[in-house]
Amino acid sequence: MDFNEELERRIIEADAFIRRYLPKEEGPAAAVAEAMNYSVLGGGKRLRPVMLLEMYHICGGADPEVVGPCAAAIEMIHSYSLVHDDLPAMDNDEYRRGRKSTHAMYGEAMGILAGDGLLNYAYETALLSLEKQCTPATARALGILARKAGIGGMVGGQVVDVASEGKQIPMETLEYIHENKTGAMIESALMTGAALAGASEEVLALAEQIGSDVGVAFQIRDDILDVTGDSAVLGKQVGSDEKNEKVTYVTLAGLEGAEAKVEELSRRAMKNVRRLPGDASFLAQLIASLINREK
Amino acid sequence: MDFNEELERRIIEADAFIRRYLPKEEGPAAAVAEAMNYSVLGGGKRLRPVMLLEMYHICGGADPEVVGPCAAAIEMIHSYSLVHDDLPAMDNDEYRRGRKSTHAMYGEAMGILAGDGLLNYAYETALLSLEKQCTPATARALGILARKAGIGGMVGGQVVDVASEGKQIPMETLEYIHENKTGAMIESALMTGAALAGASEEVLALAEQIGSDVGVAFQIRDDILDVTGDSAVLGKQVGSDEKNEKVTYVTLAGLEGAEAKVEELSRRAMKNVRRLPGDASFLAQLIASLINREK
Repeated sequence: MDFNEELERRIIEADAFIRRYLPKEEGPAAAVAEAMNYSVLGGGKRLRPVMLLEMYHICGGADPEVVGPCAAAIEMIHSYSLVHDDLPAMDNDEYRRGRKSTHAMYGEAMGILAGDGLLNYAYETALLSLEKQCTPATARALGILARKAGIGGMVGGQVVDVASEGKQIPMETLEYIHENKTGAMIESALMTGAALAGASEEVLALAEQIGSDVGVAFQIRDDILDVTGDSAVLGKQVGSDEKNEKVTYVTLAGLEGAEAKVEELSRRAMKNVRRLPGDASFLAQLIASLINREK
Repeated sequence: MDFNEELERRIIEADAFIRRYLPKEEGPAAAVAEAMNYSVLGGGKRLRPVMLLEMYHICGGADPEVVGPCAAAIEMIHSYSLVHDDLPAMDNDEYRRGRKSTHAMYGEAMGILAGDGLLNYAYETALLSLEKQCTPATARALGILARKAGIGGMVGGQVVDVASEGKQIPMETLEYIHENKTGAMIESALMTGAALAGASEEVLALAEQIGSDVGVAFQIRDDILDVTGDSAVLGKQVGSDEKNEKVTYVTLAGLEGAEAKVEELSRRAMKNVRRLPGDASFLAQLIASLINREK
């Protein structure tokens, strides 16, 4: 089986977990469940749950009842962040992945409540892992999941991103945004999967470093593609960052500097992947495909 | 010590836990921590953490490191719900408890992110209870905390409340809103405290019924005071519900019907409090003071 077929299989697997744990659209509050499900089922590569599941298996985990709830939960957290990011007071996006964003579809109040409902439901769901496996390893996994999503992780990155809008920010600030807004949830996926399988502190530290490097490289690739990409392949206009006077890795370090940074992060990530305790060949291919993508 | 002195002491105790677990205002994302702390430290009676702590003690719990994080977490959840409720797309309130609401103080984007940050931080904090006491009882407590805050509890109540605005709703819908928007978090306080102390299913069911009755009676008392209250004592205009054409328990059942319902709920709650396994005299007084209040 080649990598693309294998990836497709993994996405279907992750999607099945997500669908299994989504709320039922019934009862007096059915409308919010509908908006939540609309948000989560709006496409997306299921990158975070695929990584979480893979890392759990690499570290020797084998119980779908333990890993499934956390795999679904991390996608719910990712989805809530997109729903709130799209709100008029934030990025004010009426569309996402070719269809109406949640607040554009259901109204702004419901957009706020659907995001809140999703974030909370993520923890309701993740706690099912604990019911199944009540151990310090699971407690640690849930602690990581929560911390990486919060003000010391993704929310922190969003806050600095919002505060930086339209400003000339230094490299240090841009790196903080990339590491937290994007990197934190990739770190979370790899670390939560590893922790659920009872990984050692050393493996958790490896997972964190890999996640950070991949997340930042992924974002820098985004910045590069906005300059060099083919609009037809990319599916969006090239040059939008320049038009919006947005500070990116490319504006701060130049194209060559950006490519060199991606190369450096990629090399370190791959070296660390080889130090993981199990067969990480799929993870290595997945990371390469993300960092070297053309769209 | 009379009840009011004792209540004051309990509020100070709850406040100390809350302050202990609030985030530090440091690092690149200090601004969001500041907005979160502003929201939580804006007054309030600390009713939910006081109840959680009391129920934990009634059921034989004795470790502040176990109960403290959950006591702080439930107040963070309550606070986030107020921050998001006040947003322009929701109730659009510029003031709360005599000072600017969070979004009015820090801007709308930060209001959304501070609410998100608080909800997430609530779980980061509550999970510290699990680190200290990794048992099925703690897992059950966290599961209750999460479920009662979500779409099957508080968020569900908010959604139906928003959808009912300006409509003639039947009693069934009004009761759903009262039970979920207000009752669920009172249930959560009593049940989470009990569960952390390892209470039996029977005691948890009692705690849930008491919480529901107290929450609903508290809301009906609100409706009654809006008609019969003394504006000077209440600190707000009497008759605002009628002016806003809001459907309340009084408009649906009349003043006598509302008083009779409060009396019925109060009697059942007190009967159930007496069936709790420990000394619940303070809880009984607290409940009476909430249900029979004049402001």
